[in-house]
Formats: sequence, structure tokens, C-alpha cells
Amino acid sequence: MSFAFDITYQSSLNRARLGQLHTPHGIVETPAFIFCATKAAIKGATPQQMREEGTQIILSNTYHLMLQPGSEVIRQLGGLQKVTGWNGPMFTDSGGFQIFSLGHGGVAEEIKGKGQGTKTKTMLKISEEGAQFKSYVDGSIHNLTPEKSIQVQRDLGADLIVVLDECTPFHVDKNYTERSMQLSQRWALRSLQEFDRTDNNQQALYGISQGGVYPDLRRDMADFLNNHPFFAFAVGGSLGASKSQMVEVVEMAMENLEPSRPVHLLGIGGISDIFAGVVYGIDTFDCVHPTRLARHGGALVQPHVFEELEEDPKGREHINLRNARFREDSRPIDERCPCTACRTWSRGYIHHLLKANELLAMNIITIHNVNFMNRLLASVRAGIRDDNLNEVKKEWVAA
Amino acid sequence: MSFAFDITYQSSLNRARLGQLHTPHGIVETPAFIFCATKAAIKGATPQQMREEGTQIILSNTYHLMLQPGSEVIRQLGGLQKVTGWNGPMFTDSGGFQIFSLGHGGVAEEIKGKGQGTKTKTMLKISEEGAQFKSYVDGSIHNLTPEKSIQVQRDLGADLIVVLDECTPFHVDKNYTERSMQLSQRWALRSLQEFDRTDNNQQALYGISQGGVYPDLRRDMADFLNNHPFFAFAVGGSLGASKSQMVEVVEMAMENLEPSRPVHLLGIGGISDIFAGVVYGIDTFDCVHPTRLARHGGALVQPHVFEELEEDPKGREHINLRNARFREDSRPIDERCPCTACRTWSRGYIHHLLKANELLAMNIITIHNVNFMNRLLASVRAGIRDDNLNEVKKEWVAA
Repeated sequence: MSFAFDITYQSSLNRARLGQLHTPHGIVETPAFIFCATKAAIKGATPQQMREEGTQIILSNTYHLMLQPGSEVIRQLGGLQKVTGWNGPMFTDSGGFQIFSLGHGGVAEEIKGKGQGTKTKTMLKISEEGAQFKSYVDGSIHNLTPEKSIQVQRDLGADLIVVLDECTPFHVDKNYTERSMQLSQRWALRSLQEFDRTDNNQQALYGISQGGVYPDLRRDMADFLNNHPFFAFAVGGSLGASKSQMVEVVEMAMENLEPSRPVHLLGIGGISDIFAGVVYGIDTFDCVHPTRLARHGGALVQPHVFEELEEDPKGREHINLRNARFREDSRPIDERCPCTACRTWSRGYIHHLLKANELLAMNIITIHNVNFMNRLLASVRAGIRDDNLNEVKKEWVAA
Repeated sequence: MSFAFDITYQSSLNRARLGQLHTPHGIVETPAFIFCATKAAIKGATPQQMREEGTQIILSNTYHLMLQPGSEVIRQLGGLQKVTGWNGPMFTDSGGFQIFSLGHGGVAEEIKGKGQGTKTKTMLKISEEGAQFKSYVDGSIHNLTPEKSIQVQRDLGADLIVVLDECTPFHVDKNYTERSMQLSQRWALRSLQEFDRTDNNQQALYGISQGGVYPDLRRDMADFLNNHPFFAFAVGGSLGASKSQMVEVVEMAMENLEPSRPVHLLGIGGISDIFAGVVYGIDTFDCVHPTRLARHGGALVQPHVFEELEEDPKGREHINLRNARFREDSRPIDERCPCTACRTWSRGYIHHLLKANELLAMNIITIHNVNFMNRLLASVRAGIRDDNLNEVKKEWVAA
């Protein structure tokens, strides 16, 4: 049994559940947060530090790694788990998201409801066959087909891999979304075929729910996914223009998906998003936010930290340690936090390191944010088990 | 007994010796290498990682810390050992070296025999009282006197602290060097007085040998140092224009120093320098090279690594992992190295991280270089104990 998903507890209140996701590199207790090791490295922390702070699973991006160093190099070096020194469960995406997001110019931000971006377009052509794009590393031309994406992910060697889909931007109409969804279904079938052809029992395949913000398309997509032997599902595509629409789309995407398989919500992992997502049965989340925020001096904190600072916690999730108020503050980021950073260093010291441009600052705050996310998910799991998720939420999000 | 220096073995071949340097934060086995945590942080490694790789002692620079965040902030946050999370033996310099080196425009390089630098001058005035200079952080004017340097180092709280001296540049004549040495002696007496006035048994004071490249001045300086109750000595000042002259100057500086006290060689720590220095009785070394080199992709290696790569090891001490030859190299930096980096990551992976500008690359190579230096010093200690330092040297420096 290389792969399995055991639902160990199903809430009677809603679709929230606890699970154990078995992979050849270990078991993931779900709901879980997946940290982004975009280019085969967590920015700001070592694998040892990730483990020490309770991390279960990380992901890398196929798009970046196929361009640099190339998936065949990763394969020759022994695959992602070995090469990174992580040696635990890993996930890779298909490469599609970055191609389309960089390609269309900023669709990544758009899918997450942040309006249209302005980045340079690198996608050259999209056809029935696949997508053609230009490398941001050296300008070379690459083709990514459903088959190629599976082959590249075979090289990379993550436990959990996903089908190539077209990531539809938000501003397109229903007709475009429907045609795009149908293309993604044909690509998903080709992905499944390529996956079966090369199966070695060491990787499991996720199908992706598309269909934009349209309930009937999401239902059509659910039927398609339910009827094919994907190990698991991912919710992708346009999730709307706002947080509340995102939740609605997650609800409609989840409504008709067969509940026995694990579900990943692609690229979403804000604190409120997680509380919202698990209620609809989302099992795993990923987001660059916790590690990116750390590199800019932002430490994730619970409402009690704002209260201790005599600030209104409402709508806030982090403190910025660059703030001069922390200059002589000998307290840790959060006195109640058990992470290595909070057991070792003060806000005043971290503030100094940020001012002095010392790399250690990023490492310290990243360690804290990683521990924070892992503790958050542990609390969420406890809240589901004890049927008191709303009470648990109050400890993490100010009402 | 807060401080003591026990000579546990004295070579009969030369002045080389093994010692134990006792401090309130632990014992340092000498000869030892002191790593530079310039602004109260090792660039590229955490204190935990430093300890794991065998580090005994680190140093911070008074000059940088008095400007940012200010020594009073470090004091309020609990002192250097606590604030950095290092909690082991620490050394601070007087601040003089940076004032004079930045002040004269590149004297730091010059003292190490690399010719004249071209940096902007920030020193405003040097007088009997002390030195006046402009902050590189905010342009504010600061005075550093012998008394102020002791007070600042009291705030910082390192175990081992040093007197303020004038760092004479290389190109000055003997007259200037002699007058400068006499000024440094008067400053040393004022330092000692201020040290005694504020003594708390938690810090020990180093006097510094000046006198440039002139044997009679170095002898005069040794008499002065021997006759005053400094806990230890440091060899500073101009060490000449070349490696060979540096060794001569170290020899003349050491010749007349009373052998019972520990001696630090300021700012010097190349592999050959260490083998040369211990023979004259140097007990501790410091240098930014191992950690700085790491941040540029350079991993320190022994001659056998070049031989395995079928390259001539002569005159070489490191491999540059940015080199394309390492792209698909699945071996660690050094297969015989026991460090965490060599047990975990391949050259090919580190090469990828460097190309992708991932911070983890610096961390990995720093860990290796730190372990390398600590292993080197352990070998040097074994070579002294077994009276076969020349044999040991062959394992580290290609003849």
C-alpha cells in the first residue's frame, strides 16, 4: 500500500474530516498545510528546520525546475526528496499554473482575486496539443503537453503529482470557461493515460476541478473527476474576484466531488481561508504567503499578541518586525509560541538583524511562520475532532 | 575562576602549545578558530548550526554594533551571548580596526598585505584623547576613546575584550610607527584603568602588540605588555606586505611575549597562516574568509578533493560550486567530510541553488566551511600533541 487516504473522523456538522494521507515517504495528517519549496528549496529554512517545526509535506514547482536545472538533472541527482534532503512527502504541480500566469501576464494574482497583473507575457501558443512558452531563464522555447508534464513530474519524483490543465483567467466569459474546462478534461484523460503507461507505484495523480465560478460547470467537472481513477482531486481554476466568492466557488466545486478521495486547494492558504476550506472538505492547502511574508519581516501572530501590544487585532495576521517599536523589545515574537525562534531570539534582536540586512532575520522569521502554520493546522484538526472549530477559530482570527 | 589559561601541552620542537581557555561561557580548546559574527550574527548560519559543526567561540565587532543597534540596546536585550542565542564564549574587538581601516580608506586590506584600498574615508580626527569618526549608518559623529571602547564592550558583554589601539597603516615610516605604538601604549594603560574601575569578573582584557614590521618596536611592545596585567595578548598592527613578511612579524611579535598568557592573531586565519602561527605560539585566529567565501559559492576543501577531480591542488584551498562542471555531480562537496552539508546535499544541488539565487546555498556552504575550519584546528591540535604538525599540514595544504 504505497498510497491510501484514510478518513479517520468525519464531522457530523459539515464536510470537515480528519484523514491520513499515506505516501511512500510518510503519512500526512490532514487537514495539512503544504509549504512551497518553489525551486526545490524552502526560501529561508533548511529541511531540518522544517521538520523541527512540525512540517509534514512540501511542494516544488514543475515549471521552475523544468527550466532550471532541468528535470533530468533532478532525476540524475536522485529525485526531489533525496536532492533536497527533505526525504518526506512531496507534491509537485503540473507547471501549468506558472505558464498561464506568467503567460497571460499576472493571472496568478487574478485567480486569487487581486485584479489584473502587468507582467511580461511569456506564453507563445496554446493548442489542443499543449502550451508553448518562452523560458524566463534563457529565452529558449518549451512545449508543455499533458504527457510532457507527467514525464517531467516522473523525473522530479514527488509522491503527489497533478494533471496539466488550462488555468482560465477570471475575466473570461462562461463560453470560454466551458471550452477551457473541456480542454482540461481532454488533457486530464491524456495525463491519466501517460500516468498509467509509466506507473511505478511511487507516485499518485491528482485531477483538477475547473469550471470557474459557474455551478453547472463545476458539477460537470465533478462528474468527470468522480468517474476517473484519479487518486485525489485539486480545486483550481478561477476562484473568483474576492475572498467571499472564493469560498462560494470552493463550496460549489466540493459539493459534488466524491468524498472518499483527498482534496487539495491549489495556491490558497490564508488563515481564514483554511477555516473556510476545511468545512467543505478541503484536506490540504498551499501558499507562499508564510515564507514570503517572513522574508519581508512579517511574523504571523495570533490575536492575543495584538492584544498584548494594545492594538486592535481585527483584520490583522502579522506584526512587522522592521517597526521601530520593537527596537528594544526583549520579548520573543510570541511568548506562547513553542518554536525555536521564539525560544531563542527577541523581537529587538530580529529588528536589529532586519535593519542590518542580516540573512539570519529571514531564517528566524521563516522558522516562526512555519511553526505557526503547523500549529494552526494542528488546532484545526483538534477543532474538527472536538466539533468546536468555531471556538478554535477565535484563537486564530479576530472576529 | 572565571578566567584562566591552562597550557596542557608544550611542544619541545617550537613554541606551539595546546591550551584550555576558560571563560564564564565555557572552555575553548586552543589553538582555536574564532568565527566572525560581525553584526551579532554569523552570516549564513544559526548558532545551533555553528555548535553542530563544532564551533567553540565567535566574535562580534564593536564598531558595527555601537552604530547599529547601539551597545546600550544590546545591553538592554541581555548582552551578546543571550541576544544572539549563542550562549558560548565570545570575543569583541575594540572598534579601532574598523575606524582606522574605513577611516584611512582601505587600510584593512593593506594590513593584510593586499595593497592600498579606495574606500571613502570616514575618520575625522585622531588625537591623544581618541578617534572621531562619522557613522556609515546615518552620518552621525562619534568619538571612540580607550575608556569608551571598554564601556561599549562592557555593554556588549563578550567574555574576551580588547584595548583600543591605533592601527598603523603599512606605508608609514618607522618614526610614525613608533609614535603610534607609544600612543597605543598610553591608550592601553587608560583601557586597563577603565577595565579595573568597572571590573565584574565576567570579562577579561587583551592587550595588543603594535610596532609594525620593526623588531625593536615589537620588543619594546612585548616588554610593555608583559609588565601589565592583561589577561591575554593580541598581535595586531601592520603585519607587512606579504604572507612571508606576515610570518616574520608574527615571529618577532611573539619572540619576547611572556608565554603563559593566551595570544590571539587579529584578523588572520588562512589555512597556511594557521600552521605558521601556531608554531610561534598563537592560540586563536579569526578571519571572515570561511563565511565570506561561502556566500560567493566557495567551499573549502583539502588537497584530496582536487586530486579526485584530477586537478592540481597546489595553491588552492576551495572549489567554486558555481562552476558548470558540478551541474550533475551527485557527490557531496567532500565525500570524507562529516559535516551536515556533506551528509545531506550534493554538489549538483548546491550548484542549482546558486544559479537560482536561493539563500539555502549560502547556508549549506557556510555550514561546510565552518566544519572545515573546526576540523582543521582539531587536526592542528592533534599534530601539536603528536609532534607531527608537518605531516598533518600535508593533509590540508598541497606542497
